[in-house]
Amino acid sequence: MARRPIITLLTDFGSADYYVGTMKGVILGINPDVQIVDITHEVIPHDILDAAFTLAQTYRTYPTRTIHVAVVDPGVGTERRPILAAGDNHYFIAPDNGVLSFVYPQQERLTVREIKSEHYFRSPVSQTFHARDIFAPVAAYLSKGLEPYQLGEEITDYVRLQIPKPQAVGAKSFRGVVLKVDRFGNAITNLGRSDVPALFAAPTPRFKLKVGDREITRLLHAYAEGAPEEVFAILGSSGYLEIAANRGGAAKLLGITRGAEILLEIS
Amino acid sequence: MARRPIITLLTDFGSADYYVGTMKGVILGINPDVQIVDITHEVIPHDILDAAFTLAQTYRTYPTRTIHVAVVDPGVGTERRPILAAGDNHYFIAPDNGVLSFVYPQQERLTVREIKSEHYFRSPVSQTFHARDIFAPVAAYLSKGLEPYQLGEEITDYVRLQIPKPQAVGAKSFRGVVLKVDRFGNAITNLGRSDVPALFAAPTPRFKLKVGDREITRLLHAYAEGAPEEVFAILGSSGYLEIAANRGGAAKLLGITRGAEILLEIS
Amino acid sequence: MARRPIITLLTDFGSADYYVGTMKGVILGINPDVQIVDITHEVIPHDILDAAFTLAQTYRTYPTRTIHVAVVDPGVGTERRPILAAGDNHYFIAPDNGVLSFVYPQQERLTVREIKSEHYFRSPVSQTFHARDIFAPVAAYLSKGLEPYQLGEEITDYVRLQIPKPQAVGAKSFRGVVLKVDRFGNAITNLGRSDVPALFAAPTPRFKLKVGDREITRLLHAYAEGAPEEVFAILGSSGYLEIAANRGGAAKLLGITRGAEILLEIS
Repeated sequence: MARRPIITLLTDFGSADYYVGTMKGVILGINPDVQIVDITHEVIPHDILDAAFTLAQTYRTYPTRTIHVAVVDPGVGTERRPILAAGDNHYFIAPDNGVLSFVYPQQERLTVREIKSEHYFRSPVSQTFHARDIFAPVAAYLSKGLEPYQLGEEITDYVRLQIPKPQAVGAKSFRGVVLKVDRFGNAITNLGRSDVPALFAAPTPRFKLKVGDREITRLLHAYAEGAPEEVFAILGSSGYLEIAANRGGAAKLLGITRGAEILLEIS
Repeated sequence: MARRPIITLLTDFGSADYYVGTMKGVILGINPDVQIVDITHEVIPHDILDAAFTLAQTYRTYPTRTIHVAVVDPGVGTERRPILAAGDNHYFIAPDNGVLSFVYPQQERLTVREIKSEHYFRSPVSQTFHARDIFAPVAAYLSKGLEPYQLGEEITDYVRLQIPKPQAVGAKSFRGVVLKVDRFGNAITNLGRSDVPALFAAPTPRFKLKVGDREITRLLHAYAEGAPEEVFAILGSSGYLEIAANRGGAAKLLGITRGAEILLEIS
Repeated sequence: MARRPIITLLTDFGSADYYVGTMKGVILGINPDVQIVDITHEVIPHDILDAAFTLAQTYRTYPTRTIHVAVVDPGVGTERRPILAAGDNHYFIAPDNGVLSFVYPQQERLTVREIKSEHYFRSPVSQTFHARDIFAPVAAYLSKGLEPYQLGEEITDYVRLQIPKPQAVGAKSFRGVVLKVDRFGNAITNLGRSDVPALFAAPTPRFKLKVGDREITRLLHAYAEGAPEEVFAILGSSGYLEIAANRGGAAKLLGITRGAEILLEIS
């Protein structure tokens, strides 16, 4: 049994409209043997960083030569370019608006091309739905063996967004932000293992994590170790420090949302 | 590698209950080689027109011989018939309540049959879940090569719902409605290219589009061309005129929902 | 065409985060030929019984040797064990917290093993996301032919939750609860056909079903038979008595939610 090519979809289209079902139809209409996998269609609408974070957490688990289509595209119909990025093991098809910003620095080899070959587009191309008319068909042709160079020339001025990095504000203090609040109300911060290695060393140092009007001083190893209503820190599965509560709801307990500022002080 | 048959699912079942997972199991239990594709399960509950619109936007992109199962079925368990429609290139399985109304006029060849062969149903058939007991197994057998005539006799009195069409109210005025508000708050109207060709001609004529207590006079070519909080018109990817705003939210800005009346006056 | 193995996913992860997309990537990274099917990711967060009910309604429709991965896992990172249950025709991979409680009594042959072979885990195993690091890779290896005994020893003290059963409170009275409110507002009770066979016999006996401050006395055969705003009983597709209304909304009309008590009196 030959392996079927895989195309993943990551969008802010939601699940209620015709957008996702149409993208899938276009792909299967060109290559019915492809395996389509939904990563998510519930990206916060128009939120490029949210999509970039989710894609970065996910793509590497997929097999070599997977084609990832990431469409959060508030600039659809303007001069923003459609691009194809060929990284170490995966392809990425997206609008050139920074949605691949977290992916780029993780590749040893990277070639980014502007997609220009209208031959592989649906015709006519609409003003508002390039996921259907450009990104989906290009991904489908790529899954059938189209070579990246056939889609357009290499570019080097592709858009890279600033990834919010924690700032050192003293020898052992760091200012960070909440990158994402997940379904369980866990607040995923931008304090990564490489940013504050001391915090993740054994034994855990004493620390204060200030967020909202609370001060968190406990780093736990499992959600279920938390006391009722306790808000604590935990090393999340994303590689970033999370602010969590047993059975969820930390963000609500703290009254915070995405973008909230945090201050970490290690003793 | 032989091409695997495709069955698409479009329902109002939502994603939280056992309904969709059970339909998929029934299909795969009969034909494990089928590729199941979710179009959406978030149709407005019981809303046949919403489902009909989404199906019409989507189905044609799928490959020939795709089987589309569309179940919005408030009449489940009553005398309403299960039907199989064989169109030009696709099959449609649905309750006979009008959910295929937008599909019928788009077919050059069309045969509609009442599904009566209980041999292909699950047994016993429940009173409330024919998607599991009738529509899913029939779709699975069809994907394995069952011929439509084996399911039942042709009928001609299948239900066709009135598609809301814009009304001319003067030489250059049209009264229409909002067919759908999408995830981004775009209001998709029923003013199609063939209904008001003048509006879509180049150069764009001067026009007034009255909706709620606002008057829209600008037709833009990309969402991102809009000024903040500006509500404008745009030719949507569905082929209908949309009322939109940059970064979404037009429906909220106008205080309108699905079904809202609009008045277009072309100068 | 060889049949592709099937892995189903049932979680409380929602669809907006990176969790589900990452699980799928891990599975496909190990076995790209597997067919992944979403049962639901919208289980009420941390609600083991809700997941157990949905799984029990769904799994039997899938083909023999399907691997069902059910992850509602508030105890992730604690001493709770990962398990593999091999039943009559299906495999189940889950945390040992009772999520398989409805499945166990339905098997004639059942072997439950603690999953201990770290060789088949992702490395390192995170504290908070065993679905990605343990359950998904183990399911993928199983789909490639790994034998259950290679994962760990058989156990017999696996967790079985009490399934809420109706209580007889007199010769012909039964006290029950609402197991689930579905998307349509139908309230699925725990009064099953085997619990109160008299109710489901023909002709239907006279009965009173007390719920909230209403008394229901009608058992209908189709949702559409109900009068506007009428709340009635119906034999649901789950095999349990449902409290329903035509076009939905029964739970709201009654002001009840999951867990609400009901009292059935048969005359």
